[in-house]
Amino acid sequence: MLGKLRAKYIQSLGQKKVRDTEGVFIAEGPKIVAELLAAPGMEIQEVYAVKEWMSANEQVVAGITITEVSEDELIKISQLSTPNQVVAVVKKMNTPVISTRNTVSLALDGIQDPGNLGTIIRIADWFGISQVICSHECADMYNPKVVQATMGSIARVNVLYTELAGWLSLQKDTRIYAALLEGQDVANLQKLQEGILVIGNEARGISAAIVEQVNVKVTIPKKGRAESLNAAVAAGIILSHLT
Amino acid sequence: MLGKLRAKYIQSLGQKKVRDTEGVFIAEGPKIVAELLAAPGMEIQEVYAVKEWMSANEQVVAGITITEVSEDELIKISQLSTPNQVVAVVKKMNTPVISTRNTVSLALDGIQDPGNLGTIIRIADWFGISQVICSHECADMYNPKVVQATMGSIARVNVLYTELAGWLSLQKDTRIYAALLEGQDVANLQKLQEGILVIGNEARGISAAIVEQVNVKVTIPKKGRAESLNAAVAAGIILSHLT
Repeated sequence: MLGKLRAKYIQSLGQKKVRDTEGVFIAEGPKIVAELLAAPGMEIQEVYAVKEWMSANEQVVAGITITEVSEDELIKISQLSTPNQVVAVVKKMNTPVISTRNTVSLALDGIQDPGNLGTIIRIADWFGISQVICSHECADMYNPKVVQATMGSIARVNVLYTELAGWLSLQKDTRIYAALLEGQDVANLQKLQEGILVIGNEARGISAAIVEQVNVKVTIPKKGRAESLNAAVAAGIILSHLT
Repeated sequence: MLGKLRAKYIQSLGQKKVRDTEGVFIAEGPKIVAELLAAPGMEIQEVYAVKEWMSANEQVVAGITITEVSEDELIKISQLSTPNQVVAVVKKMNTPVISTRNTVSLALDGIQDPGNLGTIIRIADWFGISQVICSHECADMYNPKVVQATMGSIARVNVLYTELAGWLSLQKDTRIYAALLEGQDVANLQKLQEGILVIGNEARGISAAIVEQVNVKVTIPKKGRAESLNAAVAAGIILSHLT
């Protein structure tokens, strides 16, 4: 049974300012919730689930407050157009300490589409990239659409928000790569042990203050006529060649 | 000025059965409409636009019926959460005749997410792939979300719907490649002059009847812990190595 006030609170976590004040975010669906429950260091505060999910997950959730809800109640607290069994309220991760030495990092300059940001975090996780540095213009990593698109990878990739141009200028010893419309053919790149790959905004690309810091401009040669590639697809292609 | 009946008709083109009966689809926003207007062979039947778009496009639209609409009217006919200046009603393309000889083709087995399908059509266009063969389980290429995600590439890539396993079995002379969780490392593939690359459903992958016809199984090696890659990202990565 779900109280009216509680339902309103969970629903309000769709808004960034509420998430910021409360220090929590929501995750939905059996797959993503299972990944968060399994991830070390994630603090699941509350779980709201339908009976079907509860019987399948009795073992997993020992020690966590679970509230059984009806399908109608689930609809009220879900951010999805098709609610999916379970909604969890999860404590935000601590801001990670990031070092760019001996590793490949991803830097995102204004990735504003939540689906793109989530997909990029999932791609990073696939390629073993453990840290993603976002400019303040990026979508909020705790936006429900971002969490959804990460498919659980949000629990395994460190994501940091910072003033990106300034931060990059401090990484003096690490080479900066960037996806641009002109540059070295991605197919000719060597595998990297260390580097920062910058991916730019969906429409505007990478800002001038960052482009001038780039050491290696990388391009994905166009053979057809599309004007651009989706930012997440570009990130995936470059990482598949670099890592 | 937009009549009530006309507004209702345009709005109804969001539904597949209406698009099928009427033989038209809708495209929105200055960028996509401009690409369709510029594409040879596309038949734009009607354009509904706000004053701003009309003054910027006077030259382009000679000979096409344009109706000026207010922002409020645009909201009524738009499928977008943020309507964007212009809605065009466009005649569906003829079903293309496709040959798989001397070219690289893309075959999609149940790509159900409209955003993924549109993004894949855009990726095909980027890499100069001129034909995409879809199983009947794929999203409708004329779904407004697909059209939107193609960013105009829908006008330049031939898309055919067919019973995919049967169709593949007829392409006896062309090698079939498929993205699978196990197979040859994509980085070791030779560039292709001819071939069909199969991309599978977001959750279920490629159906058994198709897997058994595959000549070359291709995989994108996983270095991290994500369970899978987004289908469009996988398509982009493999095409960047194959073409």
